[in-house]
Amino acid sequence: MPDITPDTPATALISARWVLPVAPRNAVLDHHSIVLAGDRILAILPTATARTAHPDLPETVLDHHALLPGLVNAHGHAAMSLFRGYADDLPLDTWLNDRIWPLEGRWVDAGFVADGTALAVAEMVAGGTTTFSDMYFFPEATAAVALRAGVRAQICGPLVRFGNAWAPGPDEAIHQSLALHDEFRDSGQIHVAFGPHSTYALDAAHLSKVATLAEELDMRVQIHLHETAEEVAAARRETGERPLATIERCGLLSPQLQAVHMTALEPGDAERLAEHDVSVIHCPQSNLKLASGFAPIAALRAAGVRVALGTDGAASNNSLSMLREMHVAAILAKAVAGDATALPALDVIEMATLAGAQALGLGCEIGSLEAGKSADMVAIDLSGVASEPVFHPESQLVYATTHSAVSRVWVGGELLFEQGRHLRQDVSAVLASVRRWRDRMQEVV
Amino acid sequence: MPDITPDTPATALISARWVLPVAPRNAVLDHHSIVLAGDRILAILPTATARTAHPDLPETVLDHHALLPGLVNAHGHAAMSLFRGYADDLPLDTWLNDRIWPLEGRWVDAGFVADGTALAVAEMVAGGTTTFSDMYFFPEATAAVALRAGVRAQICGPLVRFGNAWAPGPDEAIHQSLALHDEFRDSGQIHVAFGPHSTYALDAAHLSKVATLAEELDMRVQIHLHETAEEVAAARRETGERPLATIERCGLLSPQLQAVHMTALEPGDAERLAEHDVSVIHCPQSNLKLASGFAPIAALRAAGVRVALGTDGAASNNSLSMLREMHVAAILAKAVAGDATALPALDVIEMATLAGAQALGLGCEIGSLEAGKSADMVAIDLSGVASEPVFHPESQLVYATTHSAVSRVWVGGELLFEQGRHLRQDVSAVLASVRRWRDRMQEVV
Repeated sequence: MPDITPDTPATALISARWVLPVAPRNAVLDHHSIVLAGDRILAILPTATARTAHPDLPETVLDHHALLPGLVNAHGHAAMSLFRGYADDLPLDTWLNDRIWPLEGRWVDAGFVADGTALAVAEMVAGGTTTFSDMYFFPEATAAVALRAGVRAQICGPLVRFGNAWAPGPDEAIHQSLALHDEFRDSGQIHVAFGPHSTYALDAAHLSKVATLAEELDMRVQIHLHETAEEVAAARRETGERPLATIERCGLLSPQLQAVHMTALEPGDAERLAEHDVSVIHCPQSNLKLASGFAPIAALRAAGVRVALGTDGAASNNSLSMLREMHVAAILAKAVAGDATALPALDVIEMATLAGAQALGLGCEIGSLEAGKSADMVAIDLSGVASEPVFHPESQLVYATTHSAVSRVWVGGELLFEQGRHLRQDVSAVLASVRRWRDRMQEVV
Repeated sequence: MPDITPDTPATALISARWVLPVAPRNAVLDHHSIVLAGDRILAILPTATARTAHPDLPETVLDHHALLPGLVNAHGHAAMSLFRGYADDLPLDTWLNDRIWPLEGRWVDAGFVADGTALAVAEMVAGGTTTFSDMYFFPEATAAVALRAGVRAQICGPLVRFGNAWAPGPDEAIHQSLALHDEFRDSGQIHVAFGPHSTYALDAAHLSKVATLAEELDMRVQIHLHETAEEVAAARRETGERPLATIERCGLLSPQLQAVHMTALEPGDAERLAEHDVSVIHCPQSNLKLASGFAPIAALRAAGVRVALGTDGAASNNSLSMLREMHVAAILAKAVAGDATALPALDVIEMATLAGAQALGLGCEIGSLEAGKSADMVAIDLSGVASEPVFHPESQLVYATTHSAVSRVWVGGELLFEQGRHLRQDVSAVLASVRRWRDRMQEVV
């Protein structure tokens, strides 16, 4: 991947009051500059040194900002942003069975997914997210929106037992996912994965088929796993084994697996996940809002499990702000561990960047600010009454800022968002389509 | 209090897409207007009716906003905003004993409190808070800042066993609190209360003295109580009783008591608190961040306990945004209760407004949008990629918005904040003083 050499010509400087490169771990650099070479990072230097070495380059000066890798939202259902706030304060099974699934049956088509994803991407970019994972129907529509908007995406072809508007059954869904994978084989921007919904929504035979194909084609697999204690208990009643055991029996316990949620664990589970290099995707706000449970994040990390962060869909959060997810993850992990030193700020920032990139198989390309990697970056303004004084910028990023502090977002060196303005998306058109969907859906509420 | 009659002349209209008056409970009004009479609310009418009845009044039109009562931040330590992010990711006892208390000993004086409170008030106003409770040294400096900034405050004279820069001992602190209470006897803006820190930081004799004086003078009492299980265990070891029992023995269990935190409860405690009409002040973000524990909010409310919300100080949060506190309170209560229907959005909004006002003894004056009450209001913009589509504005307010969506804030009909601008505070001067404090404190880190 890094085809940068010391002789590659530099093209621009981005200089920030603080740079948090994530790798090396825990580094917080004062007054440093990113030297860009097109879409890549050529070097990170003290700003004075960078200016001396590159006196003629255009320079973006970020006087009171922290510059960090673009955030990686490792789990979500982007199009569900159109359902934001439609059915809150309900238990998970009622929410899914009585509200969300009937709503999806009524409304979801490729146009819905395109419009909903455009809304989600606009929100994510404005919040500093440069790469997101998605699991939803019509994944080709999701991919098209991400491509146009200039962001990176892992697109998980959704696999469920029942037929739906996108695929008449799981075999067809697997087939369509493979076709999509083939289409984006050479894309640096779109990465196609399998998205078996859960062990309760897909049978073991199809899970095994996914395992075989994923290994053969080196594809990632993302699944909702142990989201609630009730899911685990029901699986035990109906199949005699826990979902984690089913996953293992089907051959899915591997470095390619992204296990989303994992609130209900037993002794030994964390070690088992670590041994197989499985990634856990933690969605703390969704887990709290749906009363799903408390994922033992400090214990998972202590066992050596890679933990990434996801917002889940806007229908169960109801925000796609990774900064908010980072904040809730950080404070919740402490209370769950009974240890206020658990999951310090810099560790949460790593979860939201490099760990997410690694979970998605993109750890060599993005997730940290290192020479040779893609210039996916976010600048966050730490000035103002809500975040000053600044003693430790990482504390401010995790515990005090919100998405409104995001001032600039780049993917592959391209500026996508600047001071409240989206440079690639027509947000007025996006919002106009969102309001039309709301009006249509409201008519039948 | 309400000296408004139907003949009182109207002075202005404020018309909003949605009005959430809080009283009557659960009301969400479409296209309604607040009719102002100076600093009071004269009526709430459908906008078309209001315009017909008052064709010549100046009107503020809030097309895509929710208008609700100003938020009441029922617990905090405003001046500690100057310590924001100074010492994070530490356990409560280390944080207090090794970092915060030595820092306070070194730096806290009336000037520090004035500057820190100015920062906190600027942040709170920008976040929609119109009334805050404060417990900190030099409460007269806090009161002066609140008065100048145009916000309401409950100022708790801090009572601790040890001498400090403000008072040589608890008797003097009580005396100074009484003097302050006398000074603001006729103020509608400043309300002076007693602030015994905790049962571990003040002896029973002084707690009893506070109880007697509070009853005599009808003053409120705010105390940190059962913040952690360890606090309760230590009290049992050292005194043979739990802090709640000490409080009761000292005569403090009354409607005037504001019990802050209450994470460690036993069966029967909720009923006892309800029976004595004690208010509980819930600070979920501080409880999580310091790993203090999980307050059983749904159970407390089910037992009939009034629960208000507070941000705690910026050193243990690290934000004074009540919208963020509301969000975390709402989602955490569901997970703690194991019930996704617990603490729905409108209940959280009531906690952050009317319940807070009632806890502070101001329930007849503020906390809801009702004829006769003071026009303390906040308008929150629900348009944009982070909060559309809007099906239920209360869902958006609690689950999706952040302080950056606050567009206008009024106290007693006076506009204090408009579209990012503070109209009473010189924020540049505030931030300049904050940076000077940071530089001074950083020198000795």
